Amino acid sequence: METTALPAFRKTTETFTSGAKTLPRRYFVSPEVFAREQDRIFAAQWVCVGHQSQIANPGDYFVQDVAGESLLITRDQKRTIRGFFNVCRHRGTRLCEDSSGHSSTIQCPYHAWTYALDGRLIGAPHMEEDRGFQKHDYSLGAVQTALWEGFIFLNLADQPRTVEEVFAPLAGKFTHWNLPQLRSAKRIAYDVGANWKLIFENYSECYHCPGVHPMLSKVSPYDSAVNDLCEGPFLGGFMAITKGTSLTMSGDACALPVGDVKGEDHARVFYYSFFPNVLLSMHPDYVMVHQVWPQAPERTLISCDWLFHPKAFERADFHPEDAIEFWDMTNRQDWHVCELSQQGIASRAYRPGPYSPRESIPAAWDREYLRHVD
Amino acid sequence: METTALPAFRKTTETFTSGAKTLPRRYFVSPEVFAREQDRIFAAQWVCVGHQSQIANPGDYFVQDVAGESLLITRDQKRTIRGFFNVCRHRGTRLCEDSSGHSSTIQCPYHAWTYALDGRLIGAPHMEEDRGFQKHDYSLGAVQTALWEGFIFLNLADQPRTVEEVFAPLAGKFTHWNLPQLRSAKRIAYDVGANWKLIFENYSECYHCPGVHPMLSKVSPYDSAVNDLCEGPFLGGFMAITKGTSLTMSGDACALPVGDVKGEDHARVFYYSFFPNVLLSMHPDYVMVHQVWPQAPERTLISCDWLFHPKAFERADFHPEDAIEFWDMTNRQDWHVCELSQQGIASRAYRPGPYSPRESIPAAWDREYLRHVD
Amino acid sequence: METTALPAFRKTTETFTSGAKTLPRRYFVSPEVFAREQDRIFAAQWVCVGHQSQIANPGDYFVQDVAGESLLITRDQKRTIRGFFNVCRHRGTRLCEDSSGHSSTIQCPYHAWTYALDGRLIGAPHMEEDRGFQKHDYSLGAVQTALWEGFIFLNLADQPRTVEEVFAPLAGKFTHWNLPQLRSAKRIAYDVGANWKLIFENYSECYHCPGVHPMLSKVSPYDSAVNDLCEGPFLGGFMAITKGTSLTMSGDACALPVGDVKGEDHARVFYYSFFPNVLLSMHPDYVMVHQVWPQAPERTLISCDWLFHPKAFERADFHPEDAIEFWDMTNRQDWHVCELSQQGIASRAYRPGPYSPRESIPAAWDREYLRHVD
Repeated sequence: METTALPAFRKTTETFTSGAKTLPRRYFVSPEVFAREQDRIFAAQWVCVGHQSQIANPGDYFVQDVAGESLLITRDQKRTIRGFFNVCRHRGTRLCEDSSGHSSTIQCPYHAWTYALDGRLIGAPHMEEDRGFQKHDYSLGAVQTALWEGFIFLNLADQPRTVEEVFAPLAGKFTHWNLPQLRSAKRIAYDVGANWKLIFENYSECYHCPGVHPMLSKVSPYDSAVNDLCEGPFLGGFMAITKGTSLTMSGDACALPVGDVKGEDHARVFYYSFFPNVLLSMHPDYVMVHQVWPQAPERTLISCDWLFHPKAFERADFHPEDAIEFWDMTNRQDWHVCELSQQGIASRAYRPGPYSPRESIPAAWDREYLRHVD
Repeated sequence: METTALPAFRKTTETFTSGAKTLPRRYFVSPEVFAREQDRIFAAQWVCVGHQSQIANPGDYFVQDVAGESLLITRDQKRTIRGFFNVCRHRGTRLCEDSSGHSSTIQCPYHAWTYALDGRLIGAPHMEEDRGFQKHDYSLGAVQTALWEGFIFLNLADQPRTVEEVFAPLAGKFTHWNLPQLRSAKRIAYDVGANWKLIFENYSECYHCPGVHPMLSKVSPYDSAVNDLCEGPFLGGFMAITKGTSLTMSGDACALPVGDVKGEDHARVFYYSFFPNVLLSMHPDYVMVHQVWPQAPERTLISCDWLFHPKAFERADFHPEDAIEFWDMTNRQDWHVCELSQQGIASRAYRPGPYSPRESIPAAWDREYLRHVD
Repeated sequence: METTALPAFRKTTETFTSGAKTLPRRYFVSPEVFAREQDRIFAAQWVCVGHQSQIANPGDYFVQDVAGESLLITRDQKRTIRGFFNVCRHRGTRLCEDSSGHSSTIQCPYHAWTYALDGRLIGAPHMEEDRGFQKHDYSLGAVQTALWEGFIFLNLADQPRTVEEVFAPLAGKFTHWNLPQLRSAKRIAYDVGANWKLIFENYSECYHCPGVHPMLSKVSPYDSAVNDLCEGPFLGGFMAITKGTSLTMSGDACALPVGDVKGEDHARVFYYSFFPNVLLSMHPDYVMVHQVWPQAPERTLISCDWLFHPKAFERADFHPEDAIEFWDMTNRQDWHVCELSQQGIASRAYRPGPYSPRESIPAAWDREYLRHVD
């Protein structure tokens, strides 16, 4: 065991502040708060929309809704990843109906206006008869995109801080996990009847694990949690795997190690939340990534990907369903209690309740949230 | 026949006021009026939520929504009936998901905080690590409950008038019906596309019976109605049964008499509405109780129970379905015309229309309603 | 070919104004704009609700929703077509539940108040006991109706301009089409997820035909369009049929000529929109009529009738399905791109886009629309 190789993950003394309470009711039910969040957070911060492996080749694309906008993410002929509003400049028609695909151009299904993969309008029948019309005035609306460790982020703001600047606190921390090379074996989409903040608060503590996750608790004790990112937009730490070699139905690792996993990390699961829409869960043999997409005060869409080493896919010992089934079960247990919380918080009887000493990370997440929205 | 034994039920001269009209449109379609009703009536008056026989033993409970709140009604170890908001004091989670059940404590499904049946917090894992935390600060939110003739009423107001005071006008009037001892054989829930006030206005007159209820009209003539409670929160009277011995599909009584039914009452059905949410219909052999629960200006949930003498259940001559089928059919006929009224009243062409001389009770009900909401 | 017989349909020089743009976003998504449209247009203008052949005999009726109101259109004993609010004057109950039927009187299903076909209250049980009550005070609410070329129009305004005045610009133009005598063989109702204005803009140009309607484009070239009504509430023109003898799946005419179709018109389809709710498409052998009914900013109901010569119905060469199938397919292609436009226009990235030289009629329709709503 090489504990000295992991200085960042020593048990830190977390500050537990007696008196920290859950957020007031309005944050979970108010349409006005929801609109402000969409505006100040989801339309202003870098949000993760997927992984570069989803659009490996020029012409590959996928569509993702962000802050009520349908966005088209594509790789152009120069292999640059681009983001566009999925809206024709002629009469406003939705351009791509499929959730993903491949195409050498972007053509409107209504009047056949055609755009290059870099967004330039390159075809508009009969518009040459209008002398006032210039194609270069009608490029697709663009949004900024960037990569972090192979994940695609985009930002609807006009002049956002760079991804490099935002992610500077994490520099080097995840390098050995080999994230840019991984590939998803499965995506499951969940439609959850709960406010998106309840999803983060749920992910950020294991105080609930004994009652909610009997199977997880048996192999990864709730009181083994150690947090090393305790304040700010990036929060989390790790827990021990005390039985078996990974979190799977069988208890065995189900694939090649994802990266350069060393020493004690073979018996650890790392859980980090990235404000505002990512949950990143790293196991020795797979990485699980949740994208969290608020739809309404009381409704959230969540997509969950299970990523594996690209070479794992070709091997006989590859059993991704062993990991998928474990976490699909565990995810659903979490969504259920989040939905119960949403129901109770909507009551006039709800008052902010006391966070326990085991809930310092949810409290920190709430503080980060309030920095953005208040 | 002992008519002298029933002085209260002599034919009264009802005051018919020419010129009484139905309520203006806004009372049936406005979200603002609906919110005011929920606030000033359903969250301020005593409302019936069930019968004590539903929670006969300590630990029995059921859940009922009132004015948008999920409430937990339980009988504690001292056999006291209690009402609580169904909301955990820790993170606001809904405590009970089932509509009814039995449990020796109330435990939150999220982090296992545990409450006694009297609402005291008796378990909160790890909270002892927080020196500022005191269990007695986190009892369940309580609501006032009371019994009237075996029916459970609750009140969301902080300092309501007592049930005894409110029900004083009915003192002794229903004693011989044996209501506290009865038991429900069946509950049917109806989801009706009409404002809740239309349900009361419909129940309060038999002017509609010839066209709407052909079977009922044959055995209980619409013009036999005699009202003895003609103004205020309690309204109604009785009608004659002129064929058969009860209102059932067969025409025969289907169970033991519910109480000490005397003389002419063997050939009468008594219909009373209790403002704001009860319809009480007493037949010689069964009592039907509707609970009326407004959901939206144009939607109302109605639960209907058929209650019988507890000894009736064990006898060979017990045929509750004979009564249930009769009234389920009749109920649905009523809900249908209420839905048609809702549709028409939403029109810009609707104007308050003239109540007929046969509709003095609906007019009185409207007056009582306006006392609360205006 | 008798082109001289058709002076009105000579190729006109349409004015194409470079710079005309689509309407701003709010016109397609705002509930306030929608309410204003319902008020200023659909409750203020003459709208088509059907054809006189639907109520050929006294007592025939049908029901149509206009501007949120359920209206009853009937033919009275004197053969006059009448329009009434479908609302009883007693307690506001919806009178007719069926979408069409035949009845010698109009009787309320609740308390049996009965009206003559001309709207007079002729029966109200027990109301004679109320000396203040006068039947003549409680006639059904009437709306104005009128005929134009056999089509029934109605108007919710108190003092609208006459239909004769409104339709004066079309005097004589459609006489030879024999419209009053036609009969519908089929009605299809479509529920479209798009603003109603997108339906008109779509109908008013064939710039979209090559991509959206491959089959139509083969037999009626998109660039054959000639418009002869280019400004105002009535807009449109004709296109050539260059293959076959009508627009049908087989390419053959499927019925007797509808009217006195002359010369080149045997190879033409005439397309006209009547503000605010009619699309009238005249083929040699059938007339297609769309009624457009806005339901919400992003939802429109459309009914489509296929009308034929009354003598066609009895003949062996009558194949209405040949025309119905062709346009049902083509209609659905149109609704789909309208729905895509609705989706894209809802985006914050949408900006009014440039109408092409082939879209002068949509631009003219928008101008007419703005005259009513701004």
